[in-house]
Parts: sequence; structure tokens; C-alpha cells
Amino acid sequence: MLETINIVKPAEIEKTSMEIIARELHGRTFPELEEPIVKRCIHTSADFDYADNLVFSPNAVSEALYAIRNGASIVTDTKMAASGINKKRLSQFGGKVYCFMDHEDVAEEAKERGCTRAVVCMERGAQVEGPVIFAIGNAPTALIHLYELIHEKKADPVLVIGVPVGFVNVIESKELYLKSGIPHIIAKGRKGGSNIAAAICNALLYQA
Amino acid sequence: MLETINIVKPAEIEKTSMEIIARELHGRTFPELEEPIVKRCIHTSADFDYADNLVFSPNAVSEALYAIRNGASIVTDTKMAASGINKKRLSQFGGKVYCFMDHEDVAEEAKERGCTRAVVCMERGAQVEGPVIFAIGNAPTALIHLYELIHEKKADPVLVIGVPVGFVNVIESKELYLKSGIPHIIAKGRKGGSNIAAAICNALLYQA
Repeated sequence: MLETINIVKPAEIEKTSMEIIARELHGRTFPELEEPIVKRCIHTSADFDYADNLVFSPNAVSEALYAIRNGASIVTDTKMAASGINKKRLSQFGGKVYCFMDHEDVAEEAKERGCTRAVVCMERGAQVEGPVIFAIGNAPTALIHLYELIHEKKADPVLVIGVPVGFVNVIESKELYLKSGIPHIIAKGRKGGSNIAAAICNALLYQA
Repeated sequence: MLETINIVKPAEIEKTSMEIIARELHGRTFPELEEPIVKRCIHTSADFDYADNLVFSPNAVSEALYAIRNGASIVTDTKMAASGINKKRLSQFGGKVYCFMDHEDVAEEAKERGCTRAVVCMERGAQVEGPVIFAIGNAPTALIHLYELIHEKKADPVLVIGVPVGFVNVIESKELYLKSGIPHIIAKGRKGGSNIAAAICNALLYQA
């Protein structure tokens, strides 16, 4: 039975996958710097909705690439996204990945203040030195609180990747950014997730 | 602007999300033990395709729940899935999560033998003591090699969660299981991923 499977070598799988994705996009074109990001989101989910739901603010990608080359770090709201980001590649430029979600003192502080851990994590993230990209793949409350921090001039990210997934507060949290001047890559609607957040970060890293 | 968002408390978000999912399934019913798994996959992806593409072999869930309650461990092919699985809950029953992908000696052995790391990882997984659930969210080569190990009687998992995502070898790797007597939960077609693998594991853990 196994003989009937023509096993493609791992090194070739990504190339072949990207060719299939390009073919099934039926000649649709995207801005040059955005295309690898759209394709990697489709690659990581097998979901062509990402051809339509990703929104890029003007120069979001070029400015993020510049920041990465200059040692930008990435702050994310989930351990899963932190696991998926290519940390070796990021470290070659001098950046690090930060996720504060499972720090014990974060849980304690959130309990004391009666807020979510995501809120405390965004505040910790805002204190990371140097240029910072925020990649939010899970918690809409993180995305909302980050928006507040930016407006209070307590955070100044070079890019906000806003791709929480779900059914409650998610669309609203994303719309805050779509209407704003904050540099962003947003997955409109309900879709997204830690895997999509990591895919977008990696697509940036592979272009940097 | 923020005042217009009616922020739902995190504790209530999951409950409300599940209610929305139930509503949008328009009265569709699933077998009692399978329903929480289908809903959690939709919850984690906002993708209702999982209402149609998940296939459960007979008694797959009840036998997995029995194994978890008796200390089953989970072997997975990605660090992202390992990050996402509720390890605290699993450890309450005595089980552990294993992912061998980034072990240095795995990379070395794969290089020496001219095979993929995923292949070596499945062999390591087959040596884990006690009942084992395999959760494959990324590498079709892992799913295919696991199938070979089972047929060679070198592995005997209580359940195979086969949800690699992608465009090459993925559908074929899943079809091996659909035709087999191996206990499985498979996401038919191209979709799946580490997030889906973790979601299925967690849905099992929350029922156990």
C-alpha cells in the first residue's frame, strides 16, 4: 500500500507546496513583499481564506523587515506562537522572542490587579528594549490592551501582527487597528491563531 | 472608541464561544463523545470545515479516554503542539508529553541514516512505555512512518491523531489510516496543523 505514495523529500515539500498554492490562486497577484506572507499563511493552514482576509497597513512589511535587520525582537501572547517562530533566524539579526504568559509573577500580578494575564504581558512587552514587533495570535484582550498602551504612548511597536482567533471580542479587537495609523498586519474576521502569528513572523524572517 | 467594545471576561469567553459555535452548527448533532472535539477544533481555528472533515474510528474516543485516565502519554511531532497541550491536566492522570523533534541526537541519527527527523521521532515515540497517543500535526512523513511501525508491530498506539496540514503527501498519509483498523482521529483532506493536534488532545483531556 505504501508503494503507491510517491513520497516527496522534505526539502522539496515546501517548494512543491508553494507551487500548488500559486497555481490554486489562479494568477491572483499581491504586492511583492506581502505575497510570501499570504502564501505562508495558506501553507500553514491549507486555508485559502487568508488570500482575502489579510490586511497590511502601508509599508508595514518594509518597515518590519528594516526593523528585523536592525535587531527587532518579537513579543507574542502565546507559548505556541513562541515555539513556532524561527528563533535561530531571528537571533542571527540580534532579536529575541518574548512570551511572558507563563511567568509566575505575571499570573500573580494579574490576580492582584484583577486583570487578565494578557494585559500584564503586553505591559511587559512594552518594556522590551529596542524595536519590537508584537504578534498576537490568541488573546483579543491582549490586542485591545496593546492598542490602549500605544495610545497612551506607553508602547511604540514597529508592527502589530493582530491575528487572534475566535468568536468573542476578536473582530472588534482587530477593527481597532484597521481604523488606526498603527502599523499592522491583521487577519480580518474570526480567523487567525498562534500558527498564523508564527507563520507571519517566519515569512518576515525569511525575507529579511 | 474602546467603550464601544463590550469586553467579555476570559472565563466567559470560552463558554460564549461554544454557544456561538453550537448556534452556527444549526442543530447538527454529533456522537456525544466526539462533539466536544469537533467544537474545540472549530474554536481553535474559527473554521467550520472541521464539522465535516473529522473522522473517528469506532470507539476511538472512549478508548483514548480510558487510556488517559490510566496514565497514557502523548507523543507529538511538533514543539508547537507540545506547547499547546495542557500538560498540567495530563500529568494529573500520570501522563507526559513527548516531542523528540529538536533533540540533537535525533538530528544526528536522521543525518546518518539519510531519513527525516520525523521518522526517527516516531521510532523514539514507539519506545515510550505505557499506553501512548500519537498526535501528528505537521509531518506527513511521521504519519506514514508510524503506520509502517504499527504494521511491523514496533508500535501499538491507543490512538493516532492524524492531522498534518498541507499540500504534499498529506491526504495520502491520512488515507492510510482511514482504510486501516488502527484507532484514529483524522482530519480528512489538506487541513489540520499543530493547533488542531493540540486542540484534539485538550478536548480529550477535558473529557477524561
